[in-house]
Amino acid sequence: MLDLRLIKVNKPQDVNLILGQSHFIKTVEDLYEVLVNNVPGIKFGLAFAESSGACKVRSEGNDPELKKMAEGNILEIGAGHTFAVFMRDAYPINVLNAIKNIPEVCSIYCATANSVDVIVAQNQAGGRGILGVIDGAAPVGLETESDIAWRKAFLRKIGYKL
Amino acid sequence: MLDLRLIKVNKPQDVNLILGQSHFIKTVEDLYEVLVNNVPGIKFGLAFAESSGACKVRSEGNDPELKKMAEGNILEIGAGHTFAVFMRDAYPINVLNAIKNIPEVCSIYCATANSVDVIVAQNQAGGRGILGVIDGAAPVGLETESDIAWRKAFLRKIGYKL
Amino acid sequence: MLDLRLIKVNKPQDVNLILGQSHFIKTVEDLYEVLVNNVPGIKFGLAFAESSGACKVRSEGNDPELKKMAEGNILEIGAGHTFAVFMRDAYPINVLNAIKNIPEVCSIYCATANSVDVIVAQNQAGGRGILGVIDGAAPVGLETESDIAWRKAFLRKIGYKL
Amino acid sequence: MLDLRLIKVNKPQDVNLILGQSHFIKTVEDLYEVLVNNVPGIKFGLAFAESSGACKVRSEGNDPELKKMAEGNILEIGAGHTFAVFMRDAYPINVLNAIKNIPEVCSIYCATANSVDVIVAQNQAGGRGILGVIDGAAPVGLETESDIAWRKAFLRKIGYKL
Amino acid sequence: MLDLRLIKVNKPQDVNLILGQSHFIKTVEDLYEVLVNNVPGIKFGLAFAESSGACKVRSEGNDPELKKMAEGNILEIGAGHTFAVFMRDAYPINVLNAIKNIPEVCSIYCATANSVDVIVAQNQAGGRGILGVIDGAAPVGLETESDIAWRKAFLRKIGYKL
Amino acid sequence: MLDLRLIKVNKPQDVNLILGQSHFIKTVEDLYEVLVNNVPGIKFGLAFAESSGACKVRSEGNDPELKKMAEGNILEIGAGHTFAVFMRDAYPINVLNAIKNIPEVCSIYCATANSVDVIVAQNQAGGRGILGVIDGAAPVGLETESDIAWRKAFLRKIGYKL
Repeated sequence: MLDLRLIKVNKPQDVNLILGQSHFIKTVEDLYEVLVNNVPGIKFGLAFAESSGACKVRSEGNDPELKKMAEGNILEIGAGHTFAVFMRDAYPINVLNAIKNIPEVCSIYCATANSVDVIVAQNQAGGRGILGVIDGAAPVGLETESDIAWRKAFLRKIGYKL
Repeated sequence: MLDLRLIKVNKPQDVNLILGQSHFIKTVEDLYEVLVNNVPGIKFGLAFAESSGACKVRSEGNDPELKKMAEGNILEIGAGHTFAVFMRDAYPINVLNAIKNIPEVCSIYCATANSVDVIVAQNQAGGRGILGVIDGAAPVGLETESDIAWRKAFLRKIGYKL
Repeated sequence: MLDLRLIKVNKPQDVNLILGQSHFIKTVEDLYEVLVNNVPGIKFGLAFAESSGACKVRSEGNDPELKKMAEGNILEIGAGHTFAVFMRDAYPINVLNAIKNIPEVCSIYCATANSVDVIVAQNQAGGRGILGVIDGAAPVGLETESDIAWRKAFLRKIGYKL
Repeated sequence: MLDLRLIKVNKPQDVNLILGQSHFIKTVEDLYEVLVNNVPGIKFGLAFAESSGACKVRSEGNDPELKKMAEGNILEIGAGHTFAVFMRDAYPINVLNAIKNIPEVCSIYCATANSVDVIVAQNQAGGRGILGVIDGAAPVGLETESDIAWRKAFLRKIGYKL
Repeated sequence: MLDLRLIKVNKPQDVNLILGQSHFIKTVEDLYEVLVNNVPGIKFGLAFAESSGACKVRSEGNDPELKKMAEGNILEIGAGHTFAVFMRDAYPINVLNAIKNIPEVCSIYCATANSVDVIVAQNQAGGRGILGVIDGAAPVGLETESDIAWRKAFLRKIGYKL
Repeated sequence: MLDLRLIKVNKPQDVNLILGQSHFIKTVEDLYEVLVNNVPGIKFGLAFAESSGACKVRSEGNDPELKKMAEGNILEIGAGHTFAVFMRDAYPINVLNAIKNIPEVCSIYCATANSVDVIVAQNQAGGRGILGVIDGAAPVGLETESDIAWRKAFLRKIGYKL
């Protein structure tokens, strides 16, 4: 009655993904506007799974490859009211708060450049929902003094922290 | 040790549901006030699953039918610290950002008028948690040029986009 | 191919936990600053699971016991890009909105002093992801008139509502 | 060199005004969408003073009288990058947080159904800026016990507080 | 026709002030709840100038001295729809974002422990509005290398930055 | 007793300015981090007027010319707890919401590439405060049908609206 499966997101390593739950087809227009408005020069594609009426994968973007990537992955995942943004020349940290504040957006499953497995549940009618994601590799241990020094130096070298 | 089950939300098709994770019994009062303050004339019922102490389903609302609907569904789902809002004469888009900003609210599982299956995990002690939802039907394909034209026209006809 | 397990969070009853999904190692510095900036005198430890590169559990805090608690639980859960905050002398309600607004944070699984079971999925490569949590005990029934009176009086006695 | 004047806002008593500082002509489209998206049935008109290029008063709305009211007042105030929303069948409390979160909006001078005098500064080139507003009447004294009782009862009678 | 005056805020040096523009008498209840909910142990008084109807200074708080201070200053300033919070055992940084997110709040004039002069405009009917504040002393020069070193060390010593 | 003056902001036409009220010297570090974190490649300088203790103009930035511009203007304005950001290769719309959410920030006076006159009040002790700004030129009339057509086409040509 309840079928669970892993669906691997299909994307190159240099592309960042934001995967979330939303509702209403206006999501694709609001996501588009938020992305363009927040980062000059961002390249992206995005898609949303309409889950009533025509049940189409709705999409927008300014990069054909990334738009096709978003459409393909959302169709493969097949979960109602989910959305995916694939982006280059920008990072999730640049846009994540703006996306969280879109009035249709419920929550964000992950924001990552890692390889991602999506855990999907399916009911007898064929409807699907995302239960969670496996975002990259598992941790191998606690950071040591030298790991901490590296972390602090790295965040300051890239200018993200003072 | 880990038991998974699907629980179908019991609601009419014209009622919208917002389902989320929160904490603390003050959730019911804050949700009530946010809903009344944001949309004049909204009709709603809401319930929250207290998960320590008396472990009661706490509820508020201004419509008896919707309040009873919220209580019944939260009791049936049975997952600690979850809440549900059932509403008429308003849409999730009117209130979702305000709900996301309530200080007790952790996250939102879905916001939808679709039929919803909730995936619930149960441990040996009988405690339960929501893993995700199946929100409506799965997507059947990519939007075509005419689907895009319909989407753009529809969003502008209802005045949500210019 | 998909392995599910329950992992019990290891914490004393008087310690509150906030468990969430984020991305990027800057999470630990941003969480630290948000917690110190929001509540004078808060005691806390926090940890984040880096899931690429060195794959270390990154941590910060101002209380050694709580920091060790955060490190141990995040390592045990082992899910990429997840974080945990353990706190004393403060409540989740004091800091949850500020944490939700951190630009790396995707979502919050729970905020609670209850005992918590985390439902974790594992793939064949050993990567892990959180699907949800069982937060405390299941509800046992609807609140009665006297339960409602107690709730309203309690929230006003502690000064949280007027 | 610096000329100060009072400009009385021209509006009926049953119309609410939100007056603020913003930038960029996109303000009128974003304000329109936020208002329609937040309150079903809201009636409003809004205008914004472009202050470079064509320097036109840009406007939108779904009620001709209120749109004309917004245009006339913004033209009369004449301050660059300011905007005004005039609304019926909704209250500022329904939409103010959503307006504050529009990415072009700098700040809000007032939100009120009172009569409003706007204090405007003018430089030698004819440019103008809003310094502040006189929003209704001055307070006449501290609330008494019976005033407090009335306040608490009123807020609970209209359902805004529990 | 337009009268301008300076009104000095009356407060001890160890008390912090947040002065802002809001609307609607519910402001006093929402401010109270936000302050108590955000900082355990905060001591405060707050007042709001109702500017229609009974035109009373509405107030709340958990410290009689600070409540009286808020009432006295708001009455002295006399500007419709303005509010003031006076606090001890907490800092504006702990609560300012939460106050900015209250749905009645328009904007914040200042948040400071400095001595404050409020610039007030008055019209012929006796109505008043705040134009701005003089918050402490004017700057005397650019920070030197040793000033910068002191700043960075100080922010890290108090734990606000890492 | 109350002296008013106009101070013209000194900046090239291609540089955008965000001028606001804040408190606490941590403002300069938080502004720096928010700007770098939100827009890859942004060039900026920022300054803040400390108004107690050493009363220094505190500054940060990643472009020496813009940093010097911020320092010079904040010193010239001389108003306690005010800040200015001067930026290139980014627009206020990219960062304004993130700046509004910084916990020290009270409000924003303007965000603009226009020429700006700042209206400053000074008390007898030499303390100063910003009352408002004159942001560019006054509006010259209502938009015509062709102005509206130009606006809608322009916003869609640059991709900010769909």
